[in-house]
Amino acid sequence: MDLDRRRFAALVLAVAASGSTSRRALADGDPLPSWSDGTAKRQILDFVKATTESGGPKFVPPEERIACFDQDGTLWVEQPIYTQLVYCFDRVPVVVKARPALANEEPFQTVMSGDRARIARLSMNDLVKIAAVTLTGMDVDAFREDVAKWIAEARDPRWKRPYTDLIYLPQLELMRLLRANGYKTYIVTGGGQDFVRAYAERVYEVPPEQVVGTAGGVKYEYDAAGRPVLIKEPRLLLNDDKAGKPEGIHLVIGRRPRFAFGNSSGDREMCQYTTAGEGARMAMLLLHDDGDREYAYGPARGLPDSRVGTFPEALDDEAQRKGWSVVSMKTDWNRVFAWGN
Amino acid sequence: MDLDRRRFAALVLAVAASGSTSRRALADGDPLPSWSDGTAKRQILDFVKATTESGGPKFVPPEERIACFDQDGTLWVEQPIYTQLVYCFDRVPVVVKARPALANEEPFQTVMSGDRARIARLSMNDLVKIAAVTLTGMDVDAFREDVAKWIAEARDPRWKRPYTDLIYLPQLELMRLLRANGYKTYIVTGGGQDFVRAYAERVYEVPPEQVVGTAGGVKYEYDAAGRPVLIKEPRLLLNDDKAGKPEGIHLVIGRRPRFAFGNSSGDREMCQYTTAGEGARMAMLLLHDDGDREYAYGPARGLPDSRVGTFPEALDDEAQRKGWSVVSMKTDWNRVFAWGN
Repeated sequence: MDLDRRRFAALVLAVAASGSTSRRALADGDPLPSWSDGTAKRQILDFVKATTESGGPKFVPPEERIACFDQDGTLWVEQPIYTQLVYCFDRVPVVVKARPALANEEPFQTVMSGDRARIARLSMNDLVKIAAVTLTGMDVDAFREDVAKWIAEARDPRWKRPYTDLIYLPQLELMRLLRANGYKTYIVTGGGQDFVRAYAERVYEVPPEQVVGTAGGVKYEYDAAGRPVLIKEPRLLLNDDKAGKPEGIHLVIGRRPRFAFGNSSGDREMCQYTTAGEGARMAMLLLHDDGDREYAYGPARGLPDSRVGTFPEALDDEAQRKGWSVVSMKTDWNRVFAWGN
Repeated sequence: MDLDRRRFAALVLAVAASGSTSRRALADGDPLPSWSDGTAKRQILDFVKATTESGGPKFVPPEERIACFDQDGTLWVEQPIYTQLVYCFDRVPVVVKARPALANEEPFQTVMSGDRARIARLSMNDLVKIAAVTLTGMDVDAFREDVAKWIAEARDPRWKRPYTDLIYLPQLELMRLLRANGYKTYIVTGGGQDFVRAYAERVYEVPPEQVVGTAGGVKYEYDAAGRPVLIKEPRLLLNDDKAGKPEGIHLVIGRRPRFAFGNSSGDREMCQYTTAGEGARMAMLLLHDDGDREYAYGPARGLPDSRVGTFPEALDDEAQRKGWSVVSMKTDWNRVFAWGN
């Protein structure tokens, strides 16, 4: 019963927030119903109010309202492995069919074996090889269509749901609140720029031009019919992780963000760069401390260490020192997914 | 008297169009007063009407309304040399003061000599060297401030006016008309992305995140005070000219544009890429055929050949064949600059 009421409230919010969400409409109710009352929620509401209050000391002109969100582990689940890697593994048989010689080469032989234990032991170098052959060689339109098709059909192993169901509802509410207050919301991801663009508009309401990610070069060519195509090349232009995040922000956006949200040491430099500018600034980090509803793998604050361990103690220390807000999934979110608890 | 009336009308338009230009406000009058009645103007108005007519056969969803403009020779004067090169030459003495050994090295010695004839004979390789030392090595904020200061003070040799006065009024009207109809207007320039971003918001109402240009890498570092900075490096990421234009559009925008406006063979691939997609598409090319009010240097259509000659016969042929609109500065524009005729 309580769940039904909550579901109904979320539905109302989703309908109200889609399309022409006005500042007024959101002001009428709680714009962050999945956020529990507490420090993090209050900091967000204070930041939004202060930076949009015309004539106030912390006012930020609309054109400077840039908010950047990491994706994996910040907007959706990144465990047990990044979703894009699952796509790459699923695509290996397609590539091998087109290039049969690869079936006898590593690491493709391992992937084709379907042996999960062996696949789990693949090195970073192996993963780069797999990414190179599965993410390049096709034209950008074909790639986008293939990713869109895959992500509509693939299911995650734990919840048996589409990966896009593993997007955190509190973050959708936060992005909508920011947009309703004139912020441009960007995704700044270590994942592939073209991969995330294939579904970001549909699931995050973030258009392709507001997705910054790891990007390879493309080559302008003509197909057999003489039509221009852009072919994805195995040539890295931007590794959008760690120091690469502010570098990518400069390349694509050209302004220092006012707000950044991450969850790992890959987001450290983005948070530093965001908060080092003048005027009102805010950085937030999501701590994964909820093994029941999601995963608990932040080694900070005495939690057990883990294989991924993307939130080291040093990042927690820096957050405390610089006033970045650390968001506890367990206590700051009363709900994690739109379909669950 | 007639001129005064025209100036007053332009002022009214500028005031009406700045800030909250509504579709209705523009619909009340002629949104393109500097465009003479003729094919080009009619094609623009037809395109805007057709692509925004809800339920019509050529309707384009708002999120897909992307319009790309080349800068040099399309939005402002590119003769006798690109404005950014003037900036580089002006910056050589500053660089030489910091690195005196350069004074005895070519091509810096030639630039320092002030000998216009020798400077005019510098090779492309020399220009690349000059660009490398004058456009890199500093942090991106310092560079932006320096360009903004320079462009406010520098004067062009022919009209003795700021370079930003050499922006074509008809193009400002066109960009405003497109924006008022839901188009995002982008600048897609062979010039430096960081250079154009330094003034694009002020003079074109195009924010930094909507400027795609030739881009070098930046490196994330900490300054002496421990603050993060992005240092401009002499490492080319994107040569945003010719085939590089659609490649840059994909990198920064990630969508195929609906509208493209260029003026030279550097814009050919951008026009091809734009018009090869499905649905309503439009490409336009500006022909420089007005030596009195600006310059005449298009060799197409029997005009005399010239040193720059950026509009070759082959481009004119392709435009005719593909239905791209060729805009004559002489006959399609009743006015070129906001301050003149």
